[in-house]
Amino acid sequence: MDWQAEITAAAHRIDPHIRWTPVMEVDNLIPGLDLALKLEHLQHTGSFKPRGAFNSLLTTSVPQAGIVAASGGNHGAAVAYAAKSLGHDCTIFIPETASPAKVEMIRRSGVEPIITNGVYANALNAAAIFEADHGAMSIHAYDDVGTVCGQGSVMREWEAQGLDADTILIAVGGGGLIAGAMAWLGGRRKLVAVEPETACALHAALAAETPVDVEVSGVAASALGASRVGDICFGLASDMASDVHSDLGKKQQIETVLVSDSAITAAQRSLWQNLRLAVEPGGAATIAALMSGAYRPQKGERVAALLCGANVDINF
Amino acid sequence: MDWQAEITAAAHRIDPHIRWTPVMEVDNLIPGLDLALKLEHLQHTGSFKPRGAFNSLLTTSVPQAGIVAASGGNHGAAVAYAAKSLGHDCTIFIPETASPAKVEMIRRSGVEPIITNGVYANALNAAAIFEADHGAMSIHAYDDVGTVCGQGSVMREWEAQGLDADTILIAVGGGGLIAGAMAWLGGRRKLVAVEPETACALHAALAAETPVDVEVSGVAASALGASRVGDICFGLASDMASDVHSDLGKKQQIETVLVSDSAITAAQRSLWQNLRLAVEPGGAATIAALMSGAYRPQKGERVAALLCGANVDINF
Repeated sequence: MDWQAEITAAAHRIDPHIRWTPVMEVDNLIPGLDLALKLEHLQHTGSFKPRGAFNSLLTTSVPQAGIVAASGGNHGAAVAYAAKSLGHDCTIFIPETASPAKVEMIRRSGVEPIITNGVYANALNAAAIFEADHGAMSIHAYDDVGTVCGQGSVMREWEAQGLDADTILIAVGGGGLIAGAMAWLGGRRKLVAVEPETACALHAALAAETPVDVEVSGVAASALGASRVGDICFGLASDMASDVHSDLGKKQQIETVLVSDSAITAAQRSLWQNLRLAVEPGGAATIAALMSGAYRPQKGERVAALLCGANVDINF
Repeated sequence: MDWQAEITAAAHRIDPHIRWTPVMEVDNLIPGLDLALKLEHLQHTGSFKPRGAFNSLLTTSVPQAGIVAASGGNHGAAVAYAAKSLGHDCTIFIPETASPAKVEMIRRSGVEPIITNGVYANALNAAAIFEADHGAMSIHAYDDVGTVCGQGSVMREWEAQGLDADTILIAVGGGGLIAGAMAWLGGRRKLVAVEPETACALHAALAAETPVDVEVSGVAASALGASRVGDICFGLASDMASDVHSDLGKKQQIETVLVSDSAITAAQRSLWQNLRLAVEPGGAATIAALMSGAYRPQKGERVAALLCGANVDINF
């Protein structure tokens, strides 16, 4: 698969609907480190997810019944926004435990979410029934080529903005974003996959040499709490993590690190106190890896971190 | 005075200490308007004020007793940060009513502020006594050529970042920032000076044809609540507002508009809900002018707005 060509096509396709998010150089967040930040949490709906959602919707024939999703998180907000922007019907099932900021973001796109009782699986089940009964279409949140190519556009954009880094830290839930980054970069730069200790589907899959189910919990679970990493992400990552030259042409260009909930919360606080950037826990995970020392750059290593989500509950 | 040369010199002087703040294009804040934003609220200490503070300190001989300021606001935070960065002693007097976010920002620079009872005038008085007793030096918050040239660097920077606008909205307190913008632009683009209805020192001065004292209050008073506009700002603004060609070479290139507290609060909320930008009330004033219709762009007018302050009380 010619990932560069596919991602370039996706980037052009979604360009009218997507914001080029700002980049910023900071030297006062991690002592001794000049850090390049991509403020992708300022994307429409407060996360990178509309990139994949728009690309998926623009490369398929959407049925009359429209789109359905089970998500009280950033995926749901992105799907609602993309569907309504393109004039499709959209039905979103959310668990009653969804965060107010994310539910409000869904509503702001003009979709009144349907709240299901109990755990997330009940919302998923309700969405599956709706899909079967009405002939609506669903979009996978991370494990679909259209989604991955859309998410990959953020790395293409960052390079077009002059990204100067040896190493890029990216938070991982189901792996759609980092799969897009791996696909775009093809081993040209090192990627550090940052996962919460309590939601580490990629780390577990690489250890088991196959995607496995993991328990998920913790402060970032609403964004990074996928119970199993996507096959696309796993395939790219296991190629890159292996010691042999993969079909991407490079080796050892990915590393996974884990961060604790307390490190995530400390990073979230530091991003606000030092930089006046308000992000959700998942959006602070990359900074947590640097602050906690879970990832320690070598001397002279040029480091960049992507901030992926802003949907935290703040009241003005 | 060759303002362009002075501001260029200031920009080079402060460059090692100042962040180039991001710019962003948004089309989902004001219906029908593509709006260019300058995220200057992401400057060090959460406002544009370090630009002027660094330029002032770098163009003067700072006494052994260091710097003194009376400010529980963005000026105090900027002075503390600039002074400590350059290795000077610094003493900040703040009124007991200062906002926790701004006091915390002063502390983060390594200065423990001295809290005075009652109104702001008591802090000012204490600072004056300290200055006289110890031989410390003060920096004017807005009405000094060094301060104005430092603040002017933000407009130079924005143009270097490709600013494409006929009209730029800037919030006004004492007028240091807009004085810098007027000085840099020399009438090449239209400026809209946005003031709260309850803190409108520039508006009142232009009406009276001389700086006059005004009562100040309202949600943005801690940032925009100067009781009298600076002479430098008034001089530049009255030249530009007059119908005759001024020494800046253009006419009618400034307009003042007033916004209500409720418009400011609504804009602050909208910046968070739609763009995930967390700003203080003063930082939302320019957006309030557009949302409320206090300033109505003409068809095809290319509009830009500067976000000047982020120091709002948010707890993570």
